[in-house]
Amino acid sequence: MHEEIDLRSDTVTRPSSAMRQSMADAEVGDAVIDVDPTVQRLEELTAEILGKEAAVYMPSGSMTNQIALRVHCDRGSEFICEQDCHLYFYEQGAFASLSGLVAKTIAGQGGVLKREHVCGKVNADNDHSVRTRLLCLENTHNRLGGRILPQADVIDTCNWSREHGLATHLDGARLWNAAAATHQSECDLAAPFDSVSVCFSKGLGAPVGSALAGNTEFIREARRTRKLFGGAMRQAGIIAAGALYSLQHHRSRLSEDHAHAQQLGEAFASQDGFSIRGNTIDTNIVAIEIDRKQGTAEQIVAKLAAEGVRCFAIGEQAIRLVTHLDVNSDKIDRACEVIATLA
Amino acid sequence: MHEEIDLRSDTVTRPSSAMRQSMADAEVGDAVIDVDPTVQRLEELTAEILGKEAAVYMPSGSMTNQIALRVHCDRGSEFICEQDCHLYFYEQGAFASLSGLVAKTIAGQGGVLKREHVCGKVNADNDHSVRTRLLCLENTHNRLGGRILPQADVIDTCNWSREHGLATHLDGARLWNAAAATHQSECDLAAPFDSVSVCFSKGLGAPVGSALAGNTEFIREARRTRKLFGGAMRQAGIIAAGALYSLQHHRSRLSEDHAHAQQLGEAFASQDGFSIRGNTIDTNIVAIEIDRKQGTAEQIVAKLAAEGVRCFAIGEQAIRLVTHLDVNSDKIDRACEVIATLA
Amino acid sequence: MHEEIDLRSDTVTRPSSAMRQSMADAEVGDAVIDVDPTVQRLEELTAEILGKEAAVYMPSGSMTNQIALRVHCDRGSEFICEQDCHLYFYEQGAFASLSGLVAKTIAGQGGVLKREHVCGKVNADNDHSVRTRLLCLENTHNRLGGRILPQADVIDTCNWSREHGLATHLDGARLWNAAAATHQSECDLAAPFDSVSVCFSKGLGAPVGSALAGNTEFIREARRTRKLFGGAMRQAGIIAAGALYSLQHHRSRLSEDHAHAQQLGEAFASQDGFSIRGNTIDTNIVAIEIDRKQGTAEQIVAKLAAEGVRCFAIGEQAIRLVTHLDVNSDKIDRACEVIATLA
Amino acid sequence: MHEEIDLRSDTVTRPSSAMRQSMADAEVGDAVIDVDPTVQRLEELTAEILGKEAAVYMPSGSMTNQIALRVHCDRGSEFICEQDCHLYFYEQGAFASLSGLVAKTIAGQGGVLKREHVCGKVNADNDHSVRTRLLCLENTHNRLGGRILPQADVIDTCNWSREHGLATHLDGARLWNAAAATHQSECDLAAPFDSVSVCFSKGLGAPVGSALAGNTEFIREARRTRKLFGGAMRQAGIIAAGALYSLQHHRSRLSEDHAHAQQLGEAFASQDGFSIRGNTIDTNIVAIEIDRKQGTAEQIVAKLAAEGVRCFAIGEQAIRLVTHLDVNSDKIDRACEVIATLA
Repeated sequence: MHEEIDLRSDTVTRPSSAMRQSMADAEVGDAVIDVDPTVQRLEELTAEILGKEAAVYMPSGSMTNQIALRVHCDRGSEFICEQDCHLYFYEQGAFASLSGLVAKTIAGQGGVLKREHVCGKVNADNDHSVRTRLLCLENTHNRLGGRILPQADVIDTCNWSREHGLATHLDGARLWNAAAATHQSECDLAAPFDSVSVCFSKGLGAPVGSALAGNTEFIREARRTRKLFGGAMRQAGIIAAGALYSLQHHRSRLSEDHAHAQQLGEAFASQDGFSIRGNTIDTNIVAIEIDRKQGTAEQIVAKLAAEGVRCFAIGEQAIRLVTHLDVNSDKIDRACEVIATLA
Repeated sequence: MHEEIDLRSDTVTRPSSAMRQSMADAEVGDAVIDVDPTVQRLEELTAEILGKEAAVYMPSGSMTNQIALRVHCDRGSEFICEQDCHLYFYEQGAFASLSGLVAKTIAGQGGVLKREHVCGKVNADNDHSVRTRLLCLENTHNRLGGRILPQADVIDTCNWSREHGLATHLDGARLWNAAAATHQSECDLAAPFDSVSVCFSKGLGAPVGSALAGNTEFIREARRTRKLFGGAMRQAGIIAAGALYSLQHHRSRLSEDHAHAQQLGEAFASQDGFSIRGNTIDTNIVAIEIDRKQGTAEQIVAKLAAEGVRCFAIGEQAIRLVTHLDVNSDKIDRACEVIATLA
Repeated sequence: MHEEIDLRSDTVTRPSSAMRQSMADAEVGDAVIDVDPTVQRLEELTAEILGKEAAVYMPSGSMTNQIALRVHCDRGSEFICEQDCHLYFYEQGAFASLSGLVAKTIAGQGGVLKREHVCGKVNADNDHSVRTRLLCLENTHNRLGGRILPQADVIDTCNWSREHGLATHLDGARLWNAAAATHQSECDLAAPFDSVSVCFSKGLGAPVGSALAGNTEFIREARRTRKLFGGAMRQAGIIAAGALYSLQHHRSRLSEDHAHAQQLGEAFASQDGFSIRGNTIDTNIVAIEIDRKQGTAEQIVAKLAAEGVRCFAIGEQAIRLVTHLDVNSDKIDRACEVIATLA
Repeated sequence: MHEEIDLRSDTVTRPSSAMRQSMADAEVGDAVIDVDPTVQRLEELTAEILGKEAAVYMPSGSMTNQIALRVHCDRGSEFICEQDCHLYFYEQGAFASLSGLVAKTIAGQGGVLKREHVCGKVNADNDHSVRTRLLCLENTHNRLGGRILPQADVIDTCNWSREHGLATHLDGARLWNAAAATHQSECDLAAPFDSVSVCFSKGLGAPVGSALAGNTEFIREARRTRKLFGGAMRQAGIIAAGALYSLQHHRSRLSEDHAHAQQLGEAFASQDGFSIRGNTIDTNIVAIEIDRKQGTAEQIVAKLAAEGVRCFAIGEQAIRLVTHLDVNSDKIDRACEVIATLA
């Protein structure tokens, strides 16, 4: 009986012994009425890496995204986003349900919204229309298979946004992967944006938490809004220590995950009836389209699970596998052997 | 100097002498604490014409639509609509701003959402996704130029909706025009839907008001929500009398407006650089696409205005003309002469 | 069999012949895309009478109040109000349900909040507390029986509000009555406030409508919000004409209603087991507390109704009678005769 | 120089070595897509102690309270609460700002709302009024100085609530203290309520987290809402381990904190110009009213701080001291010496 190979998500990673030790030793304080020194160090390092004035630690990436939307967009306004992005698709519509905002979803190309896609999409200033305030991008783009946005397009679209008075937010939950894959710094990738959210509990392997970065005034209001959402934690230094450790030790190793993803992708591509979504695997997410002759996504998921390889269906004929630090090369080899038996 | 020919909208119509008399003579009561008998007659007749159990009178079509969305969709849910529809585009995002709802906008075909467009668009039942509750259509479709939705498609999509547990709402602000043009009854056109909103102050020429129709329980909650929105009016019988008059006397004459719209469309189509949006004029709205060589929409609007013909730009290269009961055949002839000088 | 004497509310008044004629003759226009000249005249006259820069016509007093709250209070803030006021008590909590605002209700004295009641009630500026933005008063105070607020207290409390950075709003649905009773102008009574809402469909006897007055920028945003709430009406001049007529002809006669209210109050006070709430009848509302030995409010309401006198219970042991222009002296005499038989 | 004695709040406690070890050793999993076994154990033990079917772990007590309000109260409804309670006063009005709910605040007695206070406070079922859905109590009551609610009153008021169709929620952030002080079980104290929220990061000394308990269906929806609020954390077992440890080891020792609070209270009471709010110290919170002759709260806070004793002003003439596990008897003795020098 083989050990299970969990490729459902990079969120399943468990803290290493060293990371656990850093949490056990963390210096802490009451982050609500004082400052928690470990949280403070994490926030400062995150802001520095992202090239922003300040950052604030939160319990989840959904909270960082939804608070960014709320702070950027005043009451009765809308934001523009790519139609398959995480903050529209997978965060329970909090932007509307909690903050009363409209999402204007636009079909992009390879996950990016180019100038041609957004041109003309800022509402006229009249009483029939909601006010357009913000443009959001996601890098890497989760639902399109960890796609890296071409930075030239990102810069161009952010310039267009500024020309039209829109703020810009980057959902950079997996920005670390984009940086590792392109050899560009997170700072450069984040530079065109007013705010950026990043996650420590995905590829970086920390147990809990995300951060939102931006200028001082924006982060001040985001911190207030974190209290509103119930996200202010007391001695959060315990988990912030894990995030801090992950930031210091797990970014450079992401290229291993990317190589593993390539390997998995090739294993599928060489099988009849399986193809790579968008024909490219940019980072650690492998999105596979399944021809009906091979069965449904649910059937393939079940077949793989029977051999100890776990992944998710992300559509009726699509599955997703995600590589991460708890899946080493041996396990990837084994997973490829299982994949080779599918067709 | 020619008299002005106002083709900006069918909302500009002024009440006729007979309609004014009906309002002056209206029997009224306090519609909040009692019943206003004229409002009651209007609501009953509207419900009868639309084939629904009940109807409720409101000050505007925006209110009927937005209240329908709120009543159909419980907190934390979404509705599906065509991406150019009025209730998403022109009602200030009230569904989100007042009711916290998400709009899932989908590109349709000729204004209609067919089964192929909506297939797979009901969210999975999990904690990442907002709950999908409602499908909305608009007949005639305003922004596409008064387009009539093919009723076979409407029926098919509404059947799909019911199969997937969705309620259905029709924005029928100009349903009267669809009925007049297709020789189908409003009742038949409304039959596939759980609720319908209609306007008396557009083509029908009443000064104020709209109605929302549906089953008794739905209308009961809509009536309560009308109070919440501040739309409960006291002796509303005064204006309801105008709406009642329009319902009894102005439906059959809409075919004149349609003939006028054809005439205007032909006048444009025969000019180089002007084409009819979607190549068809189904009812009383004429949407014209302008080739850049003829100038911008704003320039054409100004040229026509200089000759006394008023219309609206609805895009950088598109204008809209709407025929109605205050523009007779002589005025249409005159407008066509002006159009003939554009190219 | 006597004719019914309807003292339930001053909202039950029906338009007179002269008022109907003014509506039948009203000059109108499309108030959404143009200006309706009659609405415009009403708005200008209202602003002038109230001494404010501008005013906007709306379908109901609930809408004027709730829009005032929304425009004064940005997202995530609260307003202070007297605990029995109409906008907290009788408007379905729209401030929270539509606008997400907190009401801080405070017990006042005779309907007014004095400096001593509000002192210390502005929240500290920290992340635990919602931001305090606005103070609201109601003059005359409905639930306390049409009580007139002492203007010296009003001025003092509004000064306190300004000292603490709060805006001020007056719910003046029946401000006309306060002006008639005190021989102070509406302008003087409204002077301490940033915004005022007034109703035309209560004591003034118009069929429909209210107005909100304030400075130009405030009214601009209120007008936009009226569209959001679905309160923008097309040829609203028809009903605005009735409101205009009422403003020009029915203010001075309110003193008759006040005399009638005194007469009714005395009729009750001379009966054992009936007392006047607050021991004063300031205007046209008569709030009567009923001793249990005389039965419940519902029983008294039924007894009076059996004799053709209609009124409302406003508590288990309290009823309310309201005088208005459709109840003349003969009817009041008759009502007093009926009251005299109660004990 | 004396070591600082931090009596500002019981939230400042830092995890002990043993608690840190339990966190370092915690078995964890992805709590969003799977189950985190430590979180699961914490939730099960909490539910068991509180005598409810289920419980859900969240990052803060504000989140547990505000989610309870949202799940109990459907759109357009209100809850009844004591006017000084934490969930109205200190949670940024999230109930309105995020969930559109109205708070009906009522002055109670010693922190409790008795039947006489709430009688008649359920709104009539009409279109003027928001629907009343829920009654909330807080035990111990923070702002009144850690007051324990008389359980007989609690039971009576909860019975009244049920008779009137209201659900009941207990903010039991410091329910552990009430249980320790009264020798009643948390289960008995929570029994009258449909839902209970409890905190692990106050007197129990865990670094992060709270839990909401109730029946299975309620907790299912609360868990979904936690995702909406951004409170779903991945390997939350790390911090849940600390909460679990606190639950198993720190409840019985709360009586020490209570004895310390008595000692502090006596030290104040023996000084001229200082009195105990409500004349009783029930648990670990000492609320002191200061006569103006002794200066303002801010001045007393400063004087104490100069001697190393830290506390908070909770009003212009009131301060609060809170005892907890990081303040031992020696420190309390020293604090009392400092207090003895105040007058």
